[in-house]
Amino acid sequence: MIVDIIDKKRLGLELTKEELECVFNGYLEGKVKDYQMSSLLMAICIQGMSEREVFDLTKIFIDSGEILDWSSLNTVIVDKHSTGGIGDKTTLIVVPIVACCGVSVVKMSGRGLGYTGGTIDKLESIPDFKTDLSDKEIYENVKKVGAVITSQTKDICLLDKKVYALRDVTATVSSIPLIAVSIMSKKIASGADKIMLDVKYGNGALINDYDDALKLAQLMQKIGETYHKEVRYILSDMNVPLGYNIGNSLEVIEAIEVLKDNKKGHLKDVCVELASNMISMAHGIGVDKAKEQVEEVLLNGKAYQKFLEIINNQGGDVNLLKISDEVTEIRANKTGILGKISAIEIGKLSLNLGAGRKELTDNINHSVGVVLKKQVMDRVQDGEVIALIYGDSNYTVDNFSQIFEIN
Amino acid sequence: MIVDIIDKKRLGLELTKEELECVFNGYLEGKVKDYQMSSLLMAICIQGMSEREVFDLTKIFIDSGEILDWSSLNTVIVDKHSTGGIGDKTTLIVVPIVACCGVSVVKMSGRGLGYTGGTIDKLESIPDFKTDLSDKEIYENVKKVGAVITSQTKDICLLDKKVYALRDVTATVSSIPLIAVSIMSKKIASGADKIMLDVKYGNGALINDYDDALKLAQLMQKIGETYHKEVRYILSDMNVPLGYNIGNSLEVIEAIEVLKDNKKGHLKDVCVELASNMISMAHGIGVDKAKEQVEEVLLNGKAYQKFLEIINNQGGDVNLLKISDEVTEIRANKTGILGKISAIEIGKLSLNLGAGRKELTDNINHSVGVVLKKQVMDRVQDGEVIALIYGDSNYTVDNFSQIFEIN
Repeated sequence: MIVDIIDKKRLGLELTKEELECVFNGYLEGKVKDYQMSSLLMAICIQGMSEREVFDLTKIFIDSGEILDWSSLNTVIVDKHSTGGIGDKTTLIVVPIVACCGVSVVKMSGRGLGYTGGTIDKLESIPDFKTDLSDKEIYENVKKVGAVITSQTKDICLLDKKVYALRDVTATVSSIPLIAVSIMSKKIASGADKIMLDVKYGNGALINDYDDALKLAQLMQKIGETYHKEVRYILSDMNVPLGYNIGNSLEVIEAIEVLKDNKKGHLKDVCVELASNMISMAHGIGVDKAKEQVEEVLLNGKAYQKFLEIINNQGGDVNLLKISDEVTEIRANKTGILGKISAIEIGKLSLNLGAGRKELTDNINHSVGVVLKKQVMDRVQDGEVIALIYGDSNYTVDNFSQIFEIN
Repeated sequence: MIVDIIDKKRLGLELTKEELECVFNGYLEGKVKDYQMSSLLMAICIQGMSEREVFDLTKIFIDSGEILDWSSLNTVIVDKHSTGGIGDKTTLIVVPIVACCGVSVVKMSGRGLGYTGGTIDKLESIPDFKTDLSDKEIYENVKKVGAVITSQTKDICLLDKKVYALRDVTATVSSIPLIAVSIMSKKIASGADKIMLDVKYGNGALINDYDDALKLAQLMQKIGETYHKEVRYILSDMNVPLGYNIGNSLEVIEAIEVLKDNKKGHLKDVCVELASNMISMAHGIGVDKAKEQVEEVLLNGKAYQKFLEIINNQGGDVNLLKISDEVTEIRANKTGILGKISAIEIGKLSLNLGAGRKELTDNINHSVGVVLKKQVMDRVQDGEVIALIYGDSNYTVDNFSQIFEIN
């Protein structure tokens, strides 16, 4: 009985494969109710899951929808996943880099909810860019330019969609096993051969703690192993936003700057790390050698050319990107060293500008956001502009200390 | 925001009074959804609640419905509550005893769900006994015979009704703070001045562990103190059924035997303990002195007369009680000492006979049940009848060892 299974998890016991199937498949079929699933999810959040349970649940999630197969492309398909964060535009940078190093990428991305933006939202700030490709279009585009970035095919991991929507409104998002199952079931069902993970930790990430992020990464790697998928990961800091620009158009613009090799720093470093590992996995070469290739395509402009190719191939034109005319300056309130730029607070500011969704049905304003002029550890002068707000903001100097700290 | 409040409890933090009000009153108003409440309830089950939270939640439950006031009766109203168990007919015995010792009782009882029977169901095995009394009838009956046993007034603790129905289907019943709030909010809203608790532990009880039962009892006593209600408790063993008879008519018949002082043993001991404490609280006398009065009214037949008065006063006639003609004997499978009579297994057997409800809407068969002929520690002979099953049972000798153990 469903109640007995939930009760077992309440007591911290391990559920059998059959018990997991009974509850989760029953939920997909509508026999198990939302209020029973949320009760079980909360028990899982607090009591955890064994690796065996995680592997079984991943299988159940995968089997709940379509499983994609790109073997007809006759190439190694490499996927990349970030657990999300403020200002994370790495996909826009990494995909063209690896594609012009001969790595095939079918990148299925999502839309944003809450503080963190989604790659698909960012790409939709490019007018006419097509994000809902058919299987046939994906196949043809990969053949032609080596990479596509498309929205999630509707029929993959149906259970994940239903469970995720419930987790979001029942405070059951922050669970390492549930996050691992959700991410890896989709990656595996999407048909990737090699998977590169970017697991974020910090106040702007789903997971605050470094050790938890490491546990999540290792668990996802183990799930991948059970499907004979090579999985690598990096852990990246999300206490500060990634890069300088936050907001859809603004992030595309920053991605272009990195691809043109005009911008060094943390964002570029993360992207080079991700891209090098993806190339290393796809071609079976060392990471250092792959890194040389990455630096080369950034320096010689090929990465940026590939980016334009991918965008044009999906109907977009980067020359039509728009940013808001309405600009508010944020000025330093004293002289000193910038000690903090809170990712979560920048995320909230950006969300309130309209760059993100509070509800799933909200429309996004692609032209708004925040541009940082300084990074943590930079010296700032009293009154100096340290950030610009694009769009109609309610920012007042009173909000300064929530976001920034000058020591 | 609701999700933030649930998340706080997921992390094991204490919720403020305002946060509890926000979620629980929001739930009553339909703003908080079932799936959010079940998620919070599961977090409470696992993470617990502070005493302060328990006191605040009790207040919220009480304020969610009508609060009864019997001050016009000009008497001390004593209530009694059992946390439920297999064969628990103590209310039927205790109420007449204390009433004929001059203690006024307004006993609001419930119906059974699952293995344990409800006092109202047991009383309804007496033809024409009226269990849904109006406030006016309660008032008049207490004035006339000193006691009523009636079903729960519909408008008391509306939140408890809604939350309890959800807990039942989401495996969130076994929580000491939630049980304490549920019981005590109803007792206090029912207008009792003194409250006697019978907290059960064992395999046939809501709580298995003695220490947990003690914690629950102490917590309920503390809740009572905050309302200046004197609360006393006993802890009683529910690893074996209480008494010899299980099933509605059969339990009324056993209660009559105890009231006629024809039956000694554990059931009588528990009833004497409960009754003595109730009299002691109501009259401000010592428990030993109260116990003397109890033994006296049992011996001189007044307790049984009072029982008949209460039943007749509510329209019932005990001469019309029916038990099933269909009887199956359970015989000992060897000679030895009866080491176990599993309360939970007897409960299941009785439920399957039709003595209880599997679903809230099930009809009860009042004439079926089980009568034990032996108790734990009794010597039995191979082939000797140790129990009788009344009704259409699927019992076979294969089931013997689930219920009984002979050493």
